[in-house]
Formats: sequence, structure tokens, C-alpha cells
Amino acid sequence: MPTAPESSASAGAVLALIRSGSVETRADIARLTGLARSTVSQRVDALIAHGFVLEDNADGGSTGGRPPRRLQLRRGEHAVAGVDLGASHCRVALLDLTGATLAQREDPLSIADGPQAVLGHVEKTLHALLKEAAHAPETLQAIGVGVPGPVEFTTGRPVDPPIMPGWHHYPIPEFFADRFGVRALVDNDVNVMALAEQRLAFPETRYLLYIKVGTGIGCGIIADSRLHRGAQGSAGDIGHIRVADDTEPCRCGNSGCLEAVAGGGALARRLTELGVDAASGSDVVRLVKSGNRDAVRMVREAGRAVGEVLAGLVNFFNPDTVVVGGALAAVHDQLLAGVREAVYRRSHPLATHVLRIEPSRTGENAAAVGAGILAIEHALSPDQVDRALAAVAG
Amino acid sequence: MPTAPESSASAGAVLALIRSGSVETRADIARLTGLARSTVSQRVDALIAHGFVLEDNADGGSTGGRPPRRLQLRRGEHAVAGVDLGASHCRVALLDLTGATLAQREDPLSIADGPQAVLGHVEKTLHALLKEAAHAPETLQAIGVGVPGPVEFTTGRPVDPPIMPGWHHYPIPEFFADRFGVRALVDNDVNVMALAEQRLAFPETRYLLYIKVGTGIGCGIIADSRLHRGAQGSAGDIGHIRVADDTEPCRCGNSGCLEAVAGGGALARRLTELGVDAASGSDVVRLVKSGNRDAVRMVREAGRAVGEVLAGLVNFFNPDTVVVGGALAAVHDQLLAGVREAVYRRSHPLATHVLRIEPSRTGENAAAVGAGILAIEHALSPDQVDRALAAVAG
Repeated sequence: MPTAPESSASAGAVLALIRSGSVETRADIARLTGLARSTVSQRVDALIAHGFVLEDNADGGSTGGRPPRRLQLRRGEHAVAGVDLGASHCRVALLDLTGATLAQREDPLSIADGPQAVLGHVEKTLHALLKEAAHAPETLQAIGVGVPGPVEFTTGRPVDPPIMPGWHHYPIPEFFADRFGVRALVDNDVNVMALAEQRLAFPETRYLLYIKVGTGIGCGIIADSRLHRGAQGSAGDIGHIRVADDTEPCRCGNSGCLEAVAGGGALARRLTELGVDAASGSDVVRLVKSGNRDAVRMVREAGRAVGEVLAGLVNFFNPDTVVVGGALAAVHDQLLAGVREAVYRRSHPLATHVLRIEPSRTGENAAAVGAGILAIEHALSPDQVDRALAAVAG
Repeated sequence: MPTAPESSASAGAVLALIRSGSVETRADIARLTGLARSTVSQRVDALIAHGFVLEDNADGGSTGGRPPRRLQLRRGEHAVAGVDLGASHCRVALLDLTGATLAQREDPLSIADGPQAVLGHVEKTLHALLKEAAHAPETLQAIGVGVPGPVEFTTGRPVDPPIMPGWHHYPIPEFFADRFGVRALVDNDVNVMALAEQRLAFPETRYLLYIKVGTGIGCGIIADSRLHRGAQGSAGDIGHIRVADDTEPCRCGNSGCLEAVAGGGALARRLTELGVDAASGSDVVRLVKSGNRDAVRMVREAGRAVGEVLAGLVNFFNPDTVVVGGALAAVHDQLLAGVREAVYRRSHPLATHVLRIEPSRTGENAAAVGAGILAIEHALSPDQVDRALAAVAG
């Protein structure tokens, strides 16, 4: 049954109207919401006092009288952090509520060092960035974190993450709440990358799949402009979907899994069998960069296997945009060529006639910025804005 | 970027609050929306005058003074129609806005007779049902229609529907607008069945897949409690996803498509090859009912093929409920057994640990009721309610 808009005419709802571009002036708000002028003023004044909104003179000639003043989201006042934890790096970005980067830093750091060491490093980095951007810690509204493993989104806890020893059920949000007094939203790195890609590179699409092809293979899903996480938050876990006509055994116990056929580790193993020295996905990337023909051929074949699986997902989900990213995609367009070849061969014409398959556009900042967007959308949600205003008023 | 609630404190929004159960009294509405008491009264009075809402005494003892009066959706006043057009039947149901059935009828009718004949029959049936239920035609608020083929949902026009000759791009909504003056919402039959299944049988789940296994094989997708139609409205078109290790040629030009392996037509063809007389999916159903061992074995194998494809979709989408319906599912639980076997073997544990795979519960009414639900949710959407009230006021 339908979900009703809670507190539908609150200050938070008014801010959502301003942010969406539906209203520009106080008069617009009164007209659209049916609120009394005095109530509109009360809401807008609170948003201005709390630093969320700026009101200035609209440009353009007035025909006389006082020109109406234009409301907009205020730049630079509040901040959020976006944290990208990779297998071997940590990137932290400080953003304002419009998404502009205030400061950022990347350091090599092994996720296997465990939560205390890694999050301690994030804490120090975040303090340094706040200082660098001349922001008091109190201006921080929320923190977004992307991690390389499955996460229960509602609690923000990793669940049996294979490459994150010591992180199972670790309460990441509590770590940040204790130190910064704000909510931390934790998600799988592929999800936050998909969010960054859609919000920044493909804002006109509402149905996007982001496929990350690296050591593992995962998919971030945007449905109706929102992240689709599924019933338990494990949506997009495509690494163990079966590739037709392939019987490669997989570490999961089944055979023919996409990751066992097309993941970086699997390619390294097969190159070794051919007498080429490769121990990991990074070695494959290096070999492809140096033009090794066996490595290039394997990447093309990996692309076909990804495309074979993707063709089915395109029929099922009907996206209009598929973005291919990850280490293997970054080094060679043979991967993308293989993906396109298989998808267009196998997908139904109705599902592909406007489908585009593109390389990732957001680059190495994707996960940090995507995590920051999670934090911004939380901080600017009507409920959260109302809570922030009530805390000041109380 | 976020979608702001339009007209967030309108009468339509107030009705949505009442319908969702968020508010029960006028005082609740004032508290939740911040609207002035006088504005709340104006909104509620208009909803009562227009027959959307009823206000009566709350039961339970009052501690003195006048007890607060409880607001609820009014039964029986307005009506919608749900129309289920099958390959060889037409079912029309008249529902009130709470979803209760006022009257219904089913007739044999070939969709291949074309839009004029079929929709003419629907028109006559609908007039008869309105009369039977003692409803004036003006009480009809909207019409929902399910058809056995792909539909462009925004225009309500079928697009190259294989078993509906003469229907390509036929303007079904215009047909009903001319005759009943209301909006008709047209969708694929599998979509409206999925909607009925989730709203009526599994209201507690927000992520449900409904797989219909008959002559064709299709899937209706509920994501976050809403129908997922995808970028072009072709989502759920799973009949041509490739089944691993199968090379059965398909009429689409590819091989190993799910429909060519497990659809009713394919099973009939294979039974004929074994010397068993079967020309169609209905013949297979008849043979299974009579206990033909070849037919039963094939249905079990078909279930495994459906399950093989479904396992990948479960990893990707992470539903908590999968409903299996359609003619083949209805006749034998061997199909469901095959589906379960393959899904639990191939899906990732995180995606299946609370997954249930169930037979359809809504039965033969599913498509008509589902189409009716589409119409109800349109008629009760805030914008539509505001428009209805403005039309009376103007």
C-alpha cells in the first residue's frame, strides 16, 4: 500500500522543494504547498539561520517594485565526508552539500590491517581535511563509507566480507558516531560507484547498471534513480552467475561462475598455465598494458563472458545505460568490445534499441564521491533536516 | 537528484495520509502536516463531499467529552474496472476503491479478433456490470487493462505483440476515454499479476518476482513495493535468456533460450517427437493432469531450466519472494520442485537464506484484480484526487 509523505509541509520538505528546483521563491513555496505565507517565512528563516539555504536577489530586470529574492542551497557551509576503502588504498574526500570537493587525500592502506587501524587512519585524515578546508568538526553532517565487501545497509556492518579479515559485523557507524557525533552510511563499493556514475556522469538516466570487473566482479544497480539493494542488501552479486558453456571450477563450489571465468584472479591463473608469469589481477593489468597478446586475448574473452551474463540481466532489468568499470576495464577497450559483442548478440531487440554500453566516466574518485553523495542525500533528507533544526531550536 | 513532493499539503496528500494509516483524525492531520485546523477542515470536508472519505465515531470508550471522529476510505462509492485480456478469454471486474469486488464476469474471447471486437465486448460487459452493481457510469474513476504482450506503459499502446494481431500501437486508452471519460492504464499481464500477488498475497514483502510459465515465459518485478518496468517498459522479458548447456534452437534466431527449452509450446513439440500427441501448451497441461509420465518428467526438467535462469536473477536482484504461476505451474508441483532444486543449488547463500519460492496464491482472478489495483492506485494518487476535486469545484 502507498507510503504517505510524512511531515509533508515541514522545513525539510521545503528544502527538498528548493533543492529539486520546483520552487525558487517564498511565493512559489506558498503556491505549491498551500502553506500560509507566515508559515513559509518561518520555515525559510529557519533554513537560512541553520545555513542550509541562501536567499539573494534574482538577476534579470525587474518591471518595478522590489524584485523577488531567489532561494538556493548554500555552498560551503556544511560538509560531509566520503570514504573509499579499497583492498590496498584509502581515499577520503570532504564535500559541501552541493557536492563540491573541499579537500581530499589518498593513501596506500591495507584493508586487511583490520577496522581499528584502518578507521583510525580515516579519523586522522578527516580531521586533517577539516583543518585544511577551515571547517570546524561541528559542520560535518554525515559520513559515507564504501567498502570492498557485502554490507547490511541498515546497520552499516560488513557481512562475511572475503577480503576484509576482522571486519565481520564490525560496527563502523558506531565508530564514527562516537568520534564525530554524526551518522555514517556504509555500503558496498560497487553500489557507491554506481551512484556516483549515475548522479554525475549520466544524470538523465534512471535505470543504470554499473559493472566492476577487477579481481572480483560485481554490479551496482540504479532503479528509478535510486540504489536498488534488494531484500537483504545483496543485490548485484553477479560474480557467481553461471556462464553458459563454461565449466571452470569456482572457489564457491559450483562451476562456470562468472568470476571463475572472467575475474582478474582467474585470468592470472590461466596465464600462468600458458607459462606467462602472473599471480594476481594487477599482474594481468600490467601484462595487458605492456601488450602481451595472451593477456589481451583473455581480456577480450572475459568481456564476452561478462556480456553473456549481462545480456540476460539486460532482458530482465531493461536498463538504458550500462557502465563498465574496474581495473580490467580501465586498461583495455577489448573488454568493452567483448561485452558489447555478447550483449547485442543475445539481448532482445526491445531491450537494446536504445541501450548504451559505456566505459566508466567518474574515474578513480568514483567511490569516495559516491560515498559522499550517500552522505549528502541523507543529510538533506526532509526528516534529517527537520531533526537538525529541532536540535538547534531545542 | 531528489524528487520533491508536489502540492505536498493538498487534499490529495491528506487522502494519502488517511489511506496509509498515518493519520486517523483531523487533529492527527494538523499535527503531522503543520496545516492550520481551518485548512485541514477544508481539505477533509472536500474529500467527504466528493465521496472519498467517511468520518465516523471511533469505537472504544471515551474518557468524557466528544470522542474524536475517525477518518477512513469510503467503501462502495466510487468504482474502477480491472480488465484481463488473455489469448482466449476476457475477464472484467468492477471494484470499489478499497479493492472489494462489486461484480465480475468472464467470457471466452479470442484476442486475435482484434481491438475493435475485443474492446467492444469489454465496453458492453462493463456497462452490464455497472448496472448489476447499481453504479452510475459517472462513478467509474479509472480502468486498468492487462494484455498478453509488451506495452509502452506511458501511452498504453501494445508494441509488436506476437499473439495479438491488429493490436500494434492500438490506442487502448483513447478507446476508453471516448466511451467512459476516464483514464485507462494498460500493462503487460505478467506485470499486473505480480502486482496482485504482492498487494494481496504477500503485502509484507517489498521485493518479489512473479514468474509465469505457460506457452511463453515472463516475469513481473516488484522492487521497493512498486512495479519495475525498466527504461523502455520491457523489464521481465526473460523468455530469451540463455539456459546453460542447452542449444535448443529458438524462433528468435538464437539457441538455448528459456522459452525454447521450458515453454509450453517447446514441451508439446518434444512430446510429439516421443510419439505423444500434443500440439500446444494446453495439450501438455492435459497430459500432465492425466498423469502421462513423459509429460510430468518434462515439466520437472522445465522447472530446472527456469530455476537455472532464476538463480542468476536471484543473485542479481535479491528478492525475498519468488512466486511461480501460469498454466504449467498450476497443474503440477513438479515444476516448482525443479525450480527450487536449481535455485538453491546455484544461488549465493546470502541471496537465498530467507528466500521463499511459492506457488501463485491469487488464482484465476489475478490479472483482472491486478489491473484493478493499477486503476485504484491511479485514482487515489494525490494529483488525481486534487484534479477530481478541482473539477467539481470549478
